[in-house]
Amino acid sequence: MLIARILTDGLDGKRIIYAEYNDGKYFALKGGLSGGFVKTSKTVEAKKILPPVKPSKIIALGANYVKHAEELKLNVGKEPVIFLKPPTSVIGHGDDIVYPACASKVDYEAELAVIISRKCRNVKRGDAHRVIAGYTCANDVSERVFQKQDGQWLRAKGFDTFCPLGPFIASGIDAHDLELKAIVNGEIRQRGNTRDMLHGVFEAIEFVSGVMTLYPGDVILTGTPDGIGEIHIGDTVEIEIANIGALQNKVVKEIR
Amino acid sequence: MLIARILTDGLDGKRIIYAEYNDGKYFALKGGLSGGFVKTSKTVEAKKILPPVKPSKIIALGANYVKHAEELKLNVGKEPVIFLKPPTSVIGHGDDIVYPACASKVDYEAELAVIISRKCRNVKRGDAHRVIAGYTCANDVSERVFQKQDGQWLRAKGFDTFCPLGPFIASGIDAHDLELKAIVNGEIRQRGNTRDMLHGVFEAIEFVSGVMTLYPGDVILTGTPDGIGEIHIGDTVEIEIANIGALQNKVVKEIR
Repeated sequence: MLIARILTDGLDGKRIIYAEYNDGKYFALKGGLSGGFVKTSKTVEAKKILPPVKPSKIIALGANYVKHAEELKLNVGKEPVIFLKPPTSVIGHGDDIVYPACASKVDYEAELAVIISRKCRNVKRGDAHRVIAGYTCANDVSERVFQKQDGQWLRAKGFDTFCPLGPFIASGIDAHDLELKAIVNGEIRQRGNTRDMLHGVFEAIEFVSGVMTLYPGDVILTGTPDGIGEIHIGDTVEIEIANIGALQNKVVKEIR
Repeated sequence: MLIARILTDGLDGKRIIYAEYNDGKYFALKGGLSGGFVKTSKTVEAKKILPPVKPSKIIALGANYVKHAEELKLNVGKEPVIFLKPPTSVIGHGDDIVYPACASKVDYEAELAVIISRKCRNVKRGDAHRVIAGYTCANDVSERVFQKQDGQWLRAKGFDTFCPLGPFIASGIDAHDLELKAIVNGEIRQRGNTRDMLHGVFEAIEFVSGVMTLYPGDVILTGTPDGIGEIHIGDTVEIEIANIGALQNKVVKEIR
């Protein structure tokens, strides 16, 4: 099932709801991330597709595809390397990526994002499927000059709008063999498959939840394959993942 | 004024309130972080002192005191280096620091924490005082083996309970000449002064808000002076800052 978080004209007093996306139509969903969604036959109008979640934490894995680690000259270890992107970096499908005035080299990074369904800690990989609400597309937008200069990656990856997520949460899919692409102005620039991850989704959940408590709506970004490259003001960038959809954003100039 | 966030028996239907701490007594406060607090003469019982805020983001400056940068062999740049600690790492005065079963070298780090009062972005240093609610004590608890191994500092500094904050928010103080200490089992182990910061509080706010939008209750940790050292299970660690107070926590074993 494909699940969107949408702005509607109002349903039962709520203007922001979750809806099932099916064949171009939206059907209101009952329930939620934690307890699970229940389908209804009530169609609703999506005035806007919102980011699929409002995460309290976005935990990202670095260097999780060998060939990408090589292209950025990153060390690959036995254990995942993790970092955080701030909640303020999240935007949704159709929102603009703001190219910071202070930036000089901004890259896209196509990534599979895992959406956490419930509060959890110390989850074993065999149980990890129980805490997954589904998957969505992510663009781990990164400024390479700051990334190299700072050592710590927060500034490079933490600007407002640097974490597009969406358009849908895909539930009930196998995340371990999905093609993912970054497409800039209609041209495929990056192509990989989640089967090439060093640390798979279940292992990532075991590792991250061994450090910190996860909450419903928290997001784990699982790293990007090789083929990263620059985006510029005026570009349109899409992150497309099989069985999920295509997350599209335009790059605009910062106005201060 | 010293401001505490406390658990009470209930006041106007609320069990969690802000109160002024004065001479051993707590007086209920009206208002809030954003609009400012208004004193009342109503005394309240503090059943528990809570973390002074529930931050959406905790942004920390690395290597912000020259001598500490030297002791950890960190590079010192012209611009601050920033990283995030997760909201799940926050505990309050009197709460336990849980020593992770997988950890082998855990250090205290005494730090001055800045509490943000309102939503802001691109704040110039000359205006930074307008977005500060006050200051509190922080312990940037850090696992050194993971810090070195990972390169990125999230795991090392991101375990649940690794960000004690409190006990009070001190408003209306000058933060640029405050003695800060770490005291382990009653013995002073670390002693520094905020005047030795490389990047002062106002510059830190300019820098961080130039990257990301800040929200009321967000926290900026301003780095630790030299004199860091280990804590062990059973220790009691205090972070004491002049004009603010002493944040005390016990170190306990992880039970899984």
